[in-house]
Amino acid sequence: MNQFLEFAIDLAEKLQGQTSTNPSVGAVIVKEDRIVGFGAHLKKGEAHAEIQALKMAGEEAKGATIYVSLEPCSHYGMTPPCSKSIIDHEINAVVYAVKDRSLNKSGHDMLVEAGISVTHSPSTRAEQLYESFFVQQELEMPFVTLKVSTSLDGKVATDTQESKWITGKDVKQDVLKLRSNHDAIITGGETVRKDNPLLTSRTESYREPQRVVLTRKSHFVESLDIFNDEQKPVIIITDQSNFKITKNQNIKLKKLDELNLKAALHYLYTEGYSNVMVEAGPNLISQFIEQNLVDQLIIYQAPKMIGGQGKYQYYQTHDVYPLSEAKQFKIISTDIIGEDVKIVLRK
Amino acid sequence: MNQFLEFAIDLAEKLQGQTSTNPSVGAVIVKEDRIVGFGAHLKKGEAHAEIQALKMAGEEAKGATIYVSLEPCSHYGMTPPCSKSIIDHEINAVVYAVKDRSLNKSGHDMLVEAGISVTHSPSTRAEQLYESFFVQQELEMPFVTLKVSTSLDGKVATDTQESKWITGKDVKQDVLKLRSNHDAIITGGETVRKDNPLLTSRTESYREPQRVVLTRKSHFVESLDIFNDEQKPVIIITDQSNFKITKNQNIKLKKLDELNLKAALHYLYTEGYSNVMVEAGPNLISQFIEQNLVDQLIIYQAPKMIGGQGKYQYYQTHDVYPLSEAKQFKIISTDIIGEDVKIVLRK
Repeated sequence: MNQFLEFAIDLAEKLQGQTSTNPSVGAVIVKEDRIVGFGAHLKKGEAHAEIQALKMAGEEAKGATIYVSLEPCSHYGMTPPCSKSIIDHEINAVVYAVKDRSLNKSGHDMLVEAGISVTHSPSTRAEQLYESFFVQQELEMPFVTLKVSTSLDGKVATDTQESKWITGKDVKQDVLKLRSNHDAIITGGETVRKDNPLLTSRTESYREPQRVVLTRKSHFVESLDIFNDEQKPVIIITDQSNFKITKNQNIKLKKLDELNLKAALHYLYTEGYSNVMVEAGPNLISQFIEQNLVDQLIIYQAPKMIGGQGKYQYYQTHDVYPLSEAKQFKIISTDIIGEDVKIVLRK
Repeated sequence: MNQFLEFAIDLAEKLQGQTSTNPSVGAVIVKEDRIVGFGAHLKKGEAHAEIQALKMAGEEAKGATIYVSLEPCSHYGMTPPCSKSIIDHEINAVVYAVKDRSLNKSGHDMLVEAGISVTHSPSTRAEQLYESFFVQQELEMPFVTLKVSTSLDGKVATDTQESKWITGKDVKQDVLKLRSNHDAIITGGETVRKDNPLLTSRTESYREPQRVVLTRKSHFVESLDIFNDEQKPVIIITDQSNFKITKNQNIKLKKLDELNLKAALHYLYTEGYSNVMVEAGPNLISQFIEQNLVDQLIIYQAPKMIGGQGKYQYYQTHDVYPLSEAKQFKIISTDIIGEDVKIVLRK
């Protein structure tokens, strides 16, 4: 693998999570073995990676090679097509790692027609980077991360529903940061009513995710913290046609005929939230797992055992499945966070 | 910390687990900044570390300094006291890391009386090495490791009791090796009856642990594998005064008036098993945890979720405890073993 293409993929990885619903892309321009420009897409609606890199390279772009993590686009969207800019800057050659399956007209073909040498140089690392983007785009569903804080024996509370705090303060800090890496945080109405959480990242250096509450009841009491801070309105998704908002509640309401998780996720995707995190009680957590809606699972385990009968296990289902139908994940990493374990898994 | 004392502690660590019920000790002899001898205690009843090192040093021991991980002994046990050999070899100075609280007469004092310079040079690493040894010796109880293989959501079987296999083949291999690091493996009668396990380490290069079965029933059927291989007799600990052994069963029987876990562990310690591992079903596992008898917990988690109501969680108790009384452990390490997670915890 070419080192410049590796660098372009590195850049894309660094910006992952903040370009929703666009993919994260990196670009590097090289002339006579010297980097003359590089860039990355920072935010949907702003310049693409290739444009950033071309701007940095200026006149040097003429006759140079551009390395891009994803095939340059060929369409007029919120910005002009990158392939056109590459042609206009008289770039000599284009090397990209992943073919953009979402393009109607191939950027590759458009560049070749303009007489530019184009190479598709596949990379497993880059494929993994865009895998979920293509799936999301095809299904029109966000990438769903489920966060669970549990005891070592799989419980989120004692049988008498005591649950504060199972994991330690370092985990709390890690979760705040995690929130800021997501477009939206989804929780259930019961969690809001019972725990009165803010669900913010609570630090100026972090971006604040959109907060989303799913509920089957027709109102929330006015005093709950989540409806009374200076953030963007909280999105409430409900099947209650008569849902009531009091005038002081900072709420954006979405009514669905039927409150099912797939429909709620699809709605969020169409609203531009392509990267969401679920932080909820065992009931909603179990529904997400049972319905195979979890793309990534982040589980924090405290090194303690709660015992009892396990009334509040984080994954409990009405149906009993054979072992061959157990929900299967793949471990990505394990870490020790303060006194607790963090395990990251993917579908 | 002196490099030679570090080396002596390294040696003690390498031999840890095979010297029961003796502590693992390393010794290094140094003359004019050159190592002239080193050794470690290999097995109870055989030469102590100091004796091994003195033998290697031979005449060079005269006027040399000996570094030992633990204070040299002063008593005639299965072998003559090391302090006497050190004096006889005309060693000039002794440096040791941990004071031996189990000695009636101090080896330190005996050496000083003989005109040898003696230094106690404390080391946290060495203290940790002997911590459990002293506790075991005082309580006359073995160091207990509990091994658990579970799904990510804390279950060892589906609600219909399907349990083979939750964790993968790499874990199986890891467990075989783990067995060989223990003096004895403890299991319950129900596991033997239901799963018919061998509980051996199954490789010539590994030592075989003693197998121990706890049961409240008065016999086992003859055909079970564990009673029909060429290993040492299986120890059965039971409260059944009329327990029956058929003539082909390779069994050593220990009857207790009452089958409680503490009494069973104490019996094993007095029989020379100071380092035991529990591999059992959720019922016995839960008893060991609930009675605070677990010194070390090794938990293998498969990246899958079983769900259901959790009839077979690995830790379930009749009593409900407040969160402040949850069984607390400390994480020592986390690893990925094949497709599964391995977490090692201590009390």
